[in-house]
Amino acid sequence: MARTQGSHSGITGPRISDAALRLFAQHGYAAVSMRQIAREVGVQAGALYNYTPDKQSLLFRLMESHMTELLASWRDLPRDGGALSQLEAFTRFHIRFHMRRPDAVFIAYMELRNLSPDNFTSIESLRREYETALEMILKQGVSEGVFVVPDTKIATLAVIAMLNGVNTWYRSGGRLSLDEVETTYWEMVRRAMVS
Amino acid sequence: MARTQGSHSGITGPRISDAALRLFAQHGYAAVSMRQIAREVGVQAGALYNYTPDKQSLLFRLMESHMTELLASWRDLPRDGGALSQLEAFTRFHIRFHMRRPDAVFIAYMELRNLSPDNFTSIESLRREYETALEMILKQGVSEGVFVVPDTKIATLAVIAMLNGVNTWYRSGGRLSLDEVETTYWEMVRRAMVS
Repeated sequence: MARTQGSHSGITGPRISDAALRLFAQHGYAAVSMRQIAREVGVQAGALYNYTPDKQSLLFRLMESHMTELLASWRDLPRDGGALSQLEAFTRFHIRFHMRRPDAVFIAYMELRNLSPDNFTSIESLRREYETALEMILKQGVSEGVFVVPDTKIATLAVIAMLNGVNTWYRSGGRLSLDEVETTYWEMVRRAMVS
Repeated sequence: MARTQGSHSGITGPRISDAALRLFAQHGYAAVSMRQIAREVGVQAGALYNYTPDKQSLLFRLMESHMTELLASWRDLPRDGGALSQLEAFTRFHIRFHMRRPDAVFIAYMELRNLSPDNFTSIESLRREYETALEMILKQGVSEGVFVVPDTKIATLAVIAMLNGVNTWYRSGGRLSLDEVETTYWEMVRRAMVS
């Protein structure tokens, strides 16, 4: 990791990440070479290795930074304590966060198969941490008597899958604003959970 | 299409489709060559061209046959007329159909970006046809006064995304049978829609 602290890392690092993200999302990880990424950034292929030891590490860091940013943004979100309002906050937060990062979301789902076993385990544990944040809200709602959720684990996965779907169809400038989309999904999530 | 009617197409065709499906799902369409597919089948690369003019047509036919099979299976499903029982039938059907074809489902989502514009339009129109089948049920339920669905289009996409999620986490032999999973999802879908 010390390699990334070099004098040019502040400039080239994000450009390498952006180019890799774009190319992986467009062509798939396996079809993209380090040479192509270098060309996209406008540097020699050798310069890439000052930033990352190999393509696998590049993929892992893209997925890891997506997940840690997601977790940090959720933790930092101001919200009050009731399960119902926490669930609303989660629903709106999840849609907005993911809509802003379509390539990262696409890769997070599609390229799991291309992670090395250790890297896969790390990403899975971050993903579980995020799922647990939602599951705790559902459990809290059940103990408050506000939600009826027979299986909080499945409900967690169902809600996240439902919300992820927005990325596959929503286009800004369409018939609905993102705010209206959030409200419509929140209505469905609420009705599915509230007793 | 006449090419596929050759004397060996009955034997080699499905084997080519199976191999292509497996390799595309594992490595991604862009990273797989016709040569690799031929090797997997155990034929010369040239023999593949008796079956398909190119890799793009192979991808398209995989996605098209997945969608037409889905539509035909849904049409053939015996079911009665009420919106509530139709929605239950759809929920259970969708989960079961997709669980049996993880590679085809993965490709149907992931490789849309690799379809030529005409092929993309064809697949999109089949996908819309399937979505419309669900949306008609939701509209019927609203007019029967059984469902409350402010936006049947979004609800359709939300339900399908939620149900697709099962493929990403369910493993047979886990703590829940597929039947229990279907029942749990149906309970959530029902509660989200019923007035």
